[in-house]
Amino acid sequence: MQFDSLDDIRAFCRDLPGGDAGAADAAAIRQQTLTKPPGSLGVLEELAIWLARWQGREIPRLDHVTVAVFAGNHGVAARGVSAYPQAVTEQMVANFAAGGAAINQLARLAVADLCVVPVELARPTRDFTIAPAMEDDEFLDDVNIGCRTVPSACDLLAIGEMGIANTTTAAVLCAALLGDGATQWAGRGTGVDDAGLARKRVAIEAALDCHRAILGDPLRVAAALGGRELAAMAGAVLAARYRRIPVLLDGFVATAAIVPLARLNGAILDHCRAGHVSAESGHRALLRQLRLEPLLDLKMRLGEASGAAVAILLLRAGLACHAGMATFAQAGVSAADK
Amino acid sequence: MQFDSLDDIRAFCRDLPGGDAGAADAAAIRQQTLTKPPGSLGVLEELAIWLARWQGREIPRLDHVTVAVFAGNHGVAARGVSAYPQAVTEQMVANFAAGGAAINQLARLAVADLCVVPVELARPTRDFTIAPAMEDDEFLDDVNIGCRTVPSACDLLAIGEMGIANTTTAAVLCAALLGDGATQWAGRGTGVDDAGLARKRVAIEAALDCHRAILGDPLRVAAALGGRELAAMAGAVLAARYRRIPVLLDGFVATAAIVPLARLNGAILDHCRAGHVSAESGHRALLRQLRLEPLLDLKMRLGEASGAAVAILLLRAGLACHAGMATFAQAGVSAADK
Repeated sequence: MQFDSLDDIRAFCRDLPGGDAGAADAAAIRQQTLTKPPGSLGVLEELAIWLARWQGREIPRLDHVTVAVFAGNHGVAARGVSAYPQAVTEQMVANFAAGGAAINQLARLAVADLCVVPVELARPTRDFTIAPAMEDDEFLDDVNIGCRTVPSACDLLAIGEMGIANTTTAAVLCAALLGDGATQWAGRGTGVDDAGLARKRVAIEAALDCHRAILGDPLRVAAALGGRELAAMAGAVLAARYRRIPVLLDGFVATAAIVPLARLNGAILDHCRAGHVSAESGHRALLRQLRLEPLLDLKMRLGEASGAAVAILLLRAGLACHAGMATFAQAGVSAADK
Repeated sequence: MQFDSLDDIRAFCRDLPGGDAGAADAAAIRQQTLTKPPGSLGVLEELAIWLARWQGREIPRLDHVTVAVFAGNHGVAARGVSAYPQAVTEQMVANFAAGGAAINQLARLAVADLCVVPVELARPTRDFTIAPAMEDDEFLDDVNIGCRTVPSACDLLAIGEMGIANTTTAAVLCAALLGDGATQWAGRGTGVDDAGLARKRVAIEAALDCHRAILGDPLRVAAALGGRELAAMAGAVLAARYRRIPVLLDGFVATAAIVPLARLNGAILDHCRAGHVSAESGHRALLRQLRLEPLLDLKMRLGEASGAAVAILLLRAGLACHAGMATFAQAGVSAADK
């Protein structure tokens, strides 16, 4: 799958592929026969049915799970909005390759393939407080990098990111497309102090001022006020939808990356679940606006797909029960009194 | 470990073994050196440090994890308080043995040994609306069954239960020891209808009336208004504390089972974490009163240690990061700007 223009993306989003209602219904019926009071596994039941809907199988599979982590550099880092120097983006990519990061441990635990995609780290986006972060064609290239990352054999895709300064980028996208200004969306990211947080708010307001003319066009906002790894995450979500692969989103930045798509068509969220709600202050408000219910609330705020990777474990729990439990008839257990 | 009298339990609870502050401090220091912003793994960091405290190891282990499920029958079932007939308790024990229940699938996923302990199923407790559920010596026997269940080699113990009518027992224990009456604590359990819920409230009020004279004595309440599997869970928590084994509690019934101990000494909760908050209506209020923060909130309400078993996965995630991540020095990653 490849997009040749922004209009291509717009056309795809106008007519999104749907899930398989028959498989979802069959999975829901199966749940009613298993040896437990109906509904008593709560969200674990919903997750099994959701997997069935997007995989088109009454009993879904999690044989091939991919965790994709996209990395990018941000011109706005020059505004002093992060507690860490920009060099850390590349250093962490090396740490991923060496197996030393949190996501390496969590992906292994979740029995998932980890795929790390540095998106043109040598070419940071431009500082969007004074210029477009990306031209439209640069944005499109990065979207297509994300599309190509999705493996053809994939039962579930978890997406996340690494990029010094990218909570500022995520906040500016939210402010531009959802309103409410810089204060609602700017948080402490990796841990900036009060002065850093103030600089972050100033940068967001400056960016909104600089690009006021294009704020009505979600994809042009994603280019001018976005980031390379965010564009790639949007591409991965689009390609997953094309192939009906269910997606787990990580935290604030990964969720913000699909806000431009959600502004084109809210149904883009149907094949996505929020792996967790992070401690980054804007994430809870963002999930609420998108009506996404997070699976976990563990005060995590690392990125790297770490929250989504932990959430894979919950999908495995839901699937294990869905696929492995005996039915009332098989087990000779009495059903509820009428 | 064995208790010879209620006074033995009282004496143990007066002077509970503590955790290993040195190991906890060492684990907390280790967390600061790992390649992530400090605190950014949130609850996963806390869990690793909590395991370190109770295991007495800077890097804890989860090599031997046990899920213990205690089953019991309840005289109060005769009051029509459950949607299922009492025979289901034994049928589900058979289902556990055959591997067909939810907890079989979840324990396997969590790489935990499943230990199912039927506690005198042929001798249900007496109907506590008209008589003591158990005499003190019966209660003590069941506590000791729970004590003996805890294996000598155990890095983590998850506890749960199966027992038709036992949410009524749990509710009456909460009402007797924490106040607030039947309405706050009576929920729909496996799914009783409005008439069943009304019968449940009547049974709870009748039990409180019948045993008013002993409500000031937590252990006599645990005998007269409790259940065999609840007594065994209390015993397992006591034996785990003796051996400094961390414990994951399952839902409403498992949490209610330790309320009598918590009334003797609130510090009994220090080696326990709430695996989840269940959809059974009294559980959230109970956790709040005990100041236990649940790890998961997945609308589960099955019992069988199912929520605690899913929470084991979060402990494994916390440990994987704690034990496996590179330090800033090892990875050559720059620390935060000062």
